[in-house]
Amino acid sequence: MHSFLLPEQFNGGETLILTAQEYHYLINVLRLRENDSFQGRDYRGIEYVLKIIRIQDQTVTLSCLPDTHLSGLHLPEIILYQCICKGKKMDRIIRQATEAGVTRIVPVISDYTIPRFGEREIRNKLQRWFRVVREAIQQSGSEIITEITQPVSLGKIKSIEQISDINLYFHQEPLENHSLHEYLCDYPKRVSLLVGPEGGLSEKETQFLKVLGFKPVLLRTNILRAETAAVYAIGAVQSILTEKETWKVIVH
Amino acid sequence: MHSFLLPEQFNGGETLILTAQEYHYLINVLRLRENDSFQGRDYRGIEYVLKIIRIQDQTVTLSCLPDTHLSGLHLPEIILYQCICKGKKMDRIIRQATEAGVTRIVPVISDYTIPRFGEREIRNKLQRWFRVVREAIQQSGSEIITEITQPVSLGKIKSIEQISDINLYFHQEPLENHSLHEYLCDYPKRVSLLVGPEGGLSEKETQFLKVLGFKPVLLRTNILRAETAAVYAIGAVQSILTEKETWKVIVH
Repeated sequence: MHSFLLPEQFNGGETLILTAQEYHYLINVLRLRENDSFQGRDYRGIEYVLKIIRIQDQTVTLSCLPDTHLSGLHLPEIILYQCICKGKKMDRIIRQATEAGVTRIVPVISDYTIPRFGEREIRNKLQRWFRVVREAIQQSGSEIITEITQPVSLGKIKSIEQISDINLYFHQEPLENHSLHEYLCDYPKRVSLLVGPEGGLSEKETQFLKVLGFKPVLLRTNILRAETAAVYAIGAVQSILTEKETWKVIVH
Repeated sequence: MHSFLLPEQFNGGETLILTAQEYHYLINVLRLRENDSFQGRDYRGIEYVLKIIRIQDQTVTLSCLPDTHLSGLHLPEIILYQCICKGKKMDRIIRQATEAGVTRIVPVISDYTIPRFGEREIRNKLQRWFRVVREAIQQSGSEIITEITQPVSLGKIKSIEQISDINLYFHQEPLENHSLHEYLCDYPKRVSLLVGPEGGLSEKETQFLKVLGFKPVLLRTNILRAETAAVYAIGAVQSILTEKETWKVIVH
């Protein structure tokens, strides 16, 4: 086992109780016993020394000690809501986002998403995207285990979550908005980025996003194709966040 | 059509005669007719209102009126020294850099550049890269007419120029270095970015770059493939520069 991936719900506590699948994996597959230690990491990429302190009634209790020997790169948590682009383009966006250590990729079906697909096509696509993610993690040696979720309709984003400290969407219209530095100056722990499809977002969609609490960001560059916009935006947001100790916002 | 790119030979005259490919594009593809108007710009980035005044014998005559209503986006001047990557990867880097409005792309032959090419191959490649740049300018409506130069050996960079206010190269080693915000805090008018090839830069090359005055930047992210690194770095540098009025460096 390289490093046991702790469940997404794990919030850094000192102990953790696992059941069902994870119990089965540790106790029946790996045949670990009480007092056995092994390495793990959580969804934020933080490494732990895990130790089995109790096995009882189909549950296993672990002690979780952050592993200070491993100085992981502490990347900010970025969730990419990527409106689905055609074929290879979507593959490339997913690969590049994974390389850069995006925590989660949510493929989004939006008004101008082309083509439309049936359930079976979505299943096939999702399988391919899983493979792309896995390969990219391995190639880049990323410590962040990027997750890719089922595609979701833009109008249903609210129901799956709205839990980032700051949620941004990118557009090219001159709207009332702040700079990325202004939006990111409180050092959010988790940032959501929504990138439109080739055909852009519809008026209805941008209205909906605003109601959800997404803030508009005008990338001060040319009109980028969706494929370029994603990695460009990730480069900008991640660099601004990881260099946070070297800049501060100018208050006008 | 975002904005029709006038031929490189166009020198600002009041009328212009187009034939062959450009005739085909305007008349057969876009189905424009006499008296139709559309937007265009020349290689210096000047915008024109173009009007078809005659279609005859496979030639189309345009009137060209400079468009004074368009206020351009003022992007910082970025020069990308891109170590040549294999095949389609280099094409994609060039296309994305052009989209983002990089001023000049210098293909660089470095120690670990694969494959090595002869003069004829370089001529062919350069022709393809020209086409990639031209298409990208048209698609993105970029006001910056990106220039792509003859490939140059890394060891000869000095001889072609060293005229940017700040010159940066990207690496993954923990070196003595500053953050992008620190390097860019004096709002340089012109920035050079050097991005290595798939195999990275050699020790000798990084030494040489330092002597030339290039500063090392550690992108605080995972190890990126060359293809991803270029657009990621452009996104970071361009965003930090174009948002300059909203942040300042923290002096420790």
